[in-house]
Amino acid sequence: MKSSEETRRGWMQQAVALAVQNVETNRGGPFGALIVKDGECIASGTNLVTHNNDPTAHAEIVAIREGCRALGTFQLDGSELYTNCEPCPMCLGAIFWSRINAYYFCATRADAAAAGFDDAFIYDQLLLRPEERAVSGLHLCVENSAAPFEAWARSAQKIRY
Amino acid sequence: MKSSEETRRGWMQQAVALAVQNVETNRGGPFGALIVKDGECIASGTNLVTHNNDPTAHAEIVAIREGCRALGTFQLDGSELYTNCEPCPMCLGAIFWSRINAYYFCATRADAAAAGFDDAFIYDQLLLRPEERAVSGLHLCVENSAAPFEAWARSAQKIRY
Repeated sequence: MKSSEETRRGWMQQAVALAVQNVETNRGGPFGALIVKDGECIASGTNLVTHNNDPTAHAEIVAIREGCRALGTFQLDGSELYTNCEPCPMCLGAIFWSRINAYYFCATRADAAAAGFDDAFIYDQLLLRPEERAVSGLHLCVENSAAPFEAWARSAQKIRY
Repeated sequence: MKSSEETRRGWMQQAVALAVQNVETNRGGPFGALIVKDGECIASGTNLVTHNNDPTAHAEIVAIREGCRALGTFQLDGSELYTNCEPCPMCLGAIFWSRINAYYFCATRADAAAAGFDDAFIYDQLLLRPEERAVSGLHLCVENSAAPFEAWARSAQKIRY
């Protein structure tokens, strides 16, 4: 079922309202997200980084984890995500891994940067080579580096994701 | 305390061993990670995507969340992360948000791609404009889109992260 423009705007308004409420209740940053499947909201999330002591607890990640819990699955194909602000690279990666069909956002990474958040900075950092980043990524090889992938290739019980 | 090359190789070998064990015990993909602070391993993680029904449960994310739990904080400054494979964009974002000082990896996104994982694909997708991505990102604005950031600017109790 394809949502109409009006329905989509309603979901986005809910994401914005969640974000405002999250700040006003001192739970965390100004971010809210919903997962919608077959015209119903199956999960929501807000930024809980400081509340949960979890730097990965962005609204989109919280909503994706909650949606998977609700459906008892590790993939959200057939779902859409609504977030009041453009996902950061971490959340965008999570959106891809979750197999969500599409995502909608309202404010942009530039708006987030203006409010003091690192989203745009991290996008820019991804364009650099690992060793040139502000957080250096260093290649360190050991002899048995292929062993995990060899075990994966051998495994008869593996569940692909 | 700066780890010596030999010590670093020891941590990487542990990350590789965790990754192999994770596959052999059928818990998930061939990935393992450690967080090291002041010469001690304070947390570890393996890929638990299918085991936990959580598409965000990559080894690095599991280790970062565990490290924060162990220290009772939302930032891991002063720590280093060891992972047997180059972090995907989701995990790289998490590394930045966690304020880890540096990360070390062994296998690359190309090795992960050869084993059937989407890491390299997602890196390539990030270079596209949101609306051109395989998972479309669509800009959908509503009237009150600035309200969350306005609430954040107003908040006297906010905790920056």
